[in-house]
Amino acid sequence: MNARKGNLLYGQSGGPTSVINATAYGVITAALAREEIGLVYAMRHGIEGAIKGDLIPMNAVPKEKLELLKQTPGSAFGSCRHKMKDFTQDDSEYRKLLQVLKDHDIRYFFYNGGNDSMDTCRKIGEYLKHVGYECRLIGLPKTVDNDLVHTDHCPGFGSAAKYIANTIREISVDLDAYPTGKVTIVEVMGRDAGWMTASAALAEDGHGPDLVYLPEVPFFAEVFLADVKRIYQTRKRCLVAVSEGIRDADGALFDSGDTQMDAFGHTQLGGVSTRLADLVQRRTGLSSRGIELNLPQRCGVHFQSRTDVEEAVACGVAGVRFAVEGQTGVMVCMERLPGSEYHIGYVANPVENIANGVREIPRAMINIEGNGMTQAFLDYAKPLIQGEPQFLLENGFIRFYE
Amino acid sequence: MNARKGNLLYGQSGGPTSVINATAYGVITAALAREEIGLVYAMRHGIEGAIKGDLIPMNAVPKEKLELLKQTPGSAFGSCRHKMKDFTQDDSEYRKLLQVLKDHDIRYFFYNGGNDSMDTCRKIGEYLKHVGYECRLIGLPKTVDNDLVHTDHCPGFGSAAKYIANTIREISVDLDAYPTGKVTIVEVMGRDAGWMTASAALAEDGHGPDLVYLPEVPFFAEVFLADVKRIYQTRKRCLVAVSEGIRDADGALFDSGDTQMDAFGHTQLGGVSTRLADLVQRRTGLSSRGIELNLPQRCGVHFQSRTDVEEAVACGVAGVRFAVEGQTGVMVCMERLPGSEYHIGYVANPVENIANGVREIPRAMINIEGNGMTQAFLDYAKPLIQGEPQFLLENGFIRFYE
Repeated sequence: MNARKGNLLYGQSGGPTSVINATAYGVITAALAREEIGLVYAMRHGIEGAIKGDLIPMNAVPKEKLELLKQTPGSAFGSCRHKMKDFTQDDSEYRKLLQVLKDHDIRYFFYNGGNDSMDTCRKIGEYLKHVGYECRLIGLPKTVDNDLVHTDHCPGFGSAAKYIANTIREISVDLDAYPTGKVTIVEVMGRDAGWMTASAALAEDGHGPDLVYLPEVPFFAEVFLADVKRIYQTRKRCLVAVSEGIRDADGALFDSGDTQMDAFGHTQLGGVSTRLADLVQRRTGLSSRGIELNLPQRCGVHFQSRTDVEEAVACGVAGVRFAVEGQTGVMVCMERLPGSEYHIGYVANPVENIANGVREIPRAMINIEGNGMTQAFLDYAKPLIQGEPQFLLENGFIRFYE
Repeated sequence: MNARKGNLLYGQSGGPTSVINATAYGVITAALAREEIGLVYAMRHGIEGAIKGDLIPMNAVPKEKLELLKQTPGSAFGSCRHKMKDFTQDDSEYRKLLQVLKDHDIRYFFYNGGNDSMDTCRKIGEYLKHVGYECRLIGLPKTVDNDLVHTDHCPGFGSAAKYIANTIREISVDLDAYPTGKVTIVEVMGRDAGWMTASAALAEDGHGPDLVYLPEVPFFAEVFLADVKRIYQTRKRCLVAVSEGIRDADGALFDSGDTQMDAFGHTQLGGVSTRLADLVQRRTGLSSRGIELNLPQRCGVHFQSRTDVEEAVACGVAGVRFAVEGQTGVMVCMERLPGSEYHIGYVANPVENIANGVREIPRAMINIEGNGMTQAFLDYAKPLIQGEPQFLLENGFIRFYE
């Protein structure tokens, strides 16, 4: 029998995905089964709620209800985009948080998010070490953008990729209904890395995009227009997947005149597809249309990849194991095991190695022209979209945790 | 044993839906089983292909391949948006078509589309009667817009409604991730009638739209802004479903400055959500976002309603029965049978009664304020989105007919 060490607090941060709650499911069910862990709490709206002491007790939630977490998009416990100051400059929030941790005897602190969230994790870890409060901090990966370093991929990406590839394929079939299809420019999320845009190429058998433009490759409007004209001449249609984050050779975002900043200083993007469609129409005379896939990319739970759901759960379970074994200040990472079959191992890497890093698409996964993906990308991404979950439905709707 | 009368030609026209090919499946399989009907052809790109003699023979297509029609979006045989002139003014296309019908001994002519297609059907029927060529003309309903008159609803609408309601619900959950959500304005297709926009309201349990604006109710920007502010004050979010076809009290489309016309003289819409989000941001200071659901509404086959698929097939089968029984110049219509359970009967109505009519949402299905739906609408629409098909998948993708 292992001695009880204390209670666990789990929080969600940043933009939701369609499987972040599957990771919550993994953490909560694994923690409830551990003798070392007493009570399990979730933060309401991430660190914002934790600082205010707004914790949701999880021990009494029925098992059947917890199961619904796996098929619920969004952030079941609420998320936030809160940037904590450095505690050496201003420790007021840290002191409030410490009091909440003490009040609830929290000895396991789990934070589920992207690189900004891992930075929050790192800061809290440093503060708790500084004041000598013993607590194990575990970061859990989550991002549709797939841009965290030191992990093969990120939970959330597989389902987003599946949504994007399937939707592109359906749009392609729709275009082909007419003898000549419009030049159709589909804008995909992804601020600094093109993983989501690239996943459009997973729609093969002639229903993929004719052209793909990524933030990793400098974008030249004249080359783009020539590409479109060339494709249209042979196919009498042109389907383009373009990242919201395309930039010129100097790294400036495409037509960045009307952009805004968010709390982390990231530029808020959007509207690229409409502007490109307008450019094509003006310069080539070809009838054009912009489609922004927008929010459904990250909340389209119907397109969950079963592989993604299972891995998201496994990340949560691995995090609990690492914490109980004594690790702290680490994020759960996925490692692709060698061999011809797809297998993933779960390892721990220090959060400071992950915070604020960005993993771009390797050049070898992009074709020489810089307007499409290579087989290396398809080999990498295909396993991530495999399998469909069995959903619990009610009256034509997937049941959500609430 | 019934005497063979001749061959059958089936065509698709207008914008695709996610179940138009299910109707094709119904026609083709029912026709192949009939002794009265010999060969079965499909027009490539609708009447455009028929005039050129571009016919696809269907008799040799394997049964397993035909089954895939039920889960294929777009127009499997190609569609068109071709407006035929009146034959009294110019009969050149009609004469070409007549020759193709004679060459292939076509005695059953099936045309699958919306009200423009029924008008094409009517014109061809009048011409063939005029020249004394015996051929039975059957119209088959198809439109995501659900705006055909003399039918309870249209195949294609149930699946589009299911896509819209599920997507709105997922967006709602995504908004609720943060303590305060953006004012989010979701733009839905629907040129003259608000059925598709209204179907957003099917997402109940707190995840529906807070406000719904339809072409049926005059749109006043000031009332809209007051509605948004009121909702935001209590809910700290505001989710709006708005039709691309909203218009002012004089019937002018909202901000119609940058609109274009299609071949039928219909205005090409879009961009309303972005313009409204901009208006909200400027006038209220609330952070706002526009989302245009765009093409996936009509091609999102993953959201097929099984009810819709089954009815789409049944329309095709009923059409073949009506034709063999001697009817001509009629469209297959759906009639909701009396009783507490949902049952549909299939009847025939003259195409001239349907061509160019538009069925708007009855006022009793819209709330008094004109910004939401009543129980009467929910009772009408709910049965149409029920059930999920069992899809044949391959590597994470639904298999398509091709």
